[in-house]
Amino acid sequence: MTHSRPSLAVVGATGVIGGVMLQILSQHADVWGDVKLISSPRSAGRKLVVRGAETEVLALDEDVFDDVDVALFLVPDEVSARWGPLAASKGTVVVDDSAAFRMDDDVPLVVPEINPHAARLRPRGIVASPHCTTLSLIVAVGALHAEFGLRELIVSSYQAVSGAGREGVAALRGELSLVAGTELGTHPGDVRRAVGDGAASPFAAPVALNVVPWAGTDAGDGWSSEEIAIREECRKILDLPSLRVTATCVYVPVVATHSMSVHARFENEVAVDRAHEILATAPGVVLFDNPGTGDFPTPSDVVGTDPTWVGRVRQSMDDPRALDMFICGDNLRKGAALNVAQIAESVAAEFPRT
Amino acid sequence: MTHSRPSLAVVGATGVIGGVMLQILSQHADVWGDVKLISSPRSAGRKLVVRGAETEVLALDEDVFDDVDVALFLVPDEVSARWGPLAASKGTVVVDDSAAFRMDDDVPLVVPEINPHAARLRPRGIVASPHCTTLSLIVAVGALHAEFGLRELIVSSYQAVSGAGREGVAALRGELSLVAGTELGTHPGDVRRAVGDGAASPFAAPVALNVVPWAGTDAGDGWSSEEIAIREECRKILDLPSLRVTATCVYVPVVATHSMSVHARFENEVAVDRAHEILATAPGVVLFDNPGTGDFPTPSDVVGTDPTWVGRVRQSMDDPRALDMFICGDNLRKGAALNVAQIAESVAAEFPRT
Repeated sequence: MTHSRPSLAVVGATGVIGGVMLQILSQHADVWGDVKLISSPRSAGRKLVVRGAETEVLALDEDVFDDVDVALFLVPDEVSARWGPLAASKGTVVVDDSAAFRMDDDVPLVVPEINPHAARLRPRGIVASPHCTTLSLIVAVGALHAEFGLRELIVSSYQAVSGAGREGVAALRGELSLVAGTELGTHPGDVRRAVGDGAASPFAAPVALNVVPWAGTDAGDGWSSEEIAIREECRKILDLPSLRVTATCVYVPVVATHSMSVHARFENEVAVDRAHEILATAPGVVLFDNPGTGDFPTPSDVVGTDPTWVGRVRQSMDDPRALDMFICGDNLRKGAALNVAQIAESVAAEFPRT
Repeated sequence: MTHSRPSLAVVGATGVIGGVMLQILSQHADVWGDVKLISSPRSAGRKLVVRGAETEVLALDEDVFDDVDVALFLVPDEVSARWGPLAASKGTVVVDDSAAFRMDDDVPLVVPEINPHAARLRPRGIVASPHCTTLSLIVAVGALHAEFGLRELIVSSYQAVSGAGREGVAALRGELSLVAGTELGTHPGDVRRAVGDGAASPFAAPVALNVVPWAGTDAGDGWSSEEIAIREECRKILDLPSLRVTATCVYVPVVATHSMSVHARFENEVAVDRAHEILATAPGVVLFDNPGTGDFPTPSDVVGTDPTWVGRVRQSMDDPRALDMFICGDNLRKGAALNVAQIAESVAAEFPRT
């Protein structure tokens, strides 16, 4: 490793999150030497622009990591599970966006605004980035935890269909083209009849003119896998193994930006004024909270931006230790590519300038 | 009052909820004598069909209640506030769907499945029907309260735009016609630019491809009036003046049927199996809960039906006294016209058959 700056590989460069990552690499202060773009053999050979230079996409294989210092994995779980450890075995630091390693005790789960130190201790050479819903939530809640001491989170999500990938966006757009301009939506079953049996959709019900209270796979006892993930990831990131967390994950007909209604109970009494001060100055957070004049975050305001936006902050009327708030974060930016880039940049800072 | 069956007046017969009420009166077992249809002078003279008979709509005036035993008020708050007491002063029992009297100590707030007895004690001659979000919530939660003893509710709503009246539905349909089939929704501000400044919308932000965490008016300390209403109405209906209730009300791009994510904490430990038994047999409730096979309620399944549908029932992993669930109810049926009709039918049963 004799480069003056560490070399980088982007694995999954041709995907949705890969595309956002190439934008980010072109926009952020450039800390990287060589940048390799990597994809499945099927997409290899394409040329993409990163940092202003047209770059050929290489096929994922055993040798591609030989001279790579840091590799960003923006690929499905099973691809990360197979290729991440292989890259790490060559000395490459792997920053993984998949769920493959998030709950591995030997893999830190990192949100740079909250637990940046955790990225330095990586026994397997792998650092994991949390699920997109966890990410938007934890940046705001973690800042409040540092002052008030978090004890319980009760979260209901309003998740964008892009959380289910390109297929999710295609399903919403296809369904909307069938129902927009019609009188559908007030009679039993008419939306379901109009959009068909959902064979082409990753959702278990129509998502246009509807909400779908199920995200991920069946985790048992009535829970979905994404609800369990929020609980386990919040506990790990905040290093609060007994934190009480209850999540209900619901898809809504929004293209990008996850929203969450959050009831957060703390050890100590919380004042809204102090919570406002904390959120207004917390890294990665925008406070947008004056509902009387229409100032609260919505996905249409937040999409395409980096921070977590927080509004509707109020003290629970029946519990002076609890705050309620509404949080929005772009699931494709901070919720995925941006957090991976931030982790990688913190790793890059460890490399000696030669 | 010498009729063999009590006479009825439907005030607001030409409105959205009035239309649903005329359907219900034609479908339910007929307990009524004469039925008068009443509207503002502007809509009077129109002819509507109720119980198979074409009926001319009369203008609301002082004399119209003279021979009316029961009057259903399906009109805005200010119309109920003015005309409800006038009708009651003539001996007419008023069943009011507006917010004008819901929190009046001398007006019972009634959900026939939960507190039917309350309708009989009406010092002002007025019985109020709760807000639509409260109604869907309370039918399910009230059944569980009877067995487990409710202590706290934390509710996040997914409210249909018809909760904001015809203007709400028109805003969603108009906005959808602008954004469907486009690539909008992934870039900052593009939905907001496409739908304009919202001047023609009752919502403070675009509602197509968006969610809007604000319903009603500014109730102070960051709360919206609908959030306060859910708290006060649940306490009154369940006769639990110190019940802890926290609500976050959010509009979603759904035409009809309100959904709610509910975290309910009880005095006693709750078992999901027993909760299932209670909900499966509770009046006005449909249990639809097998998420592994896609069985959970969504608005597209529930719209146009009478019951409150409940699914995603699970015991909180960190609190054996708490249940989480997802509830859907058609805000135009049980959420408005149906509950008023049910109250009126219970009042009709008080009249002697001569």
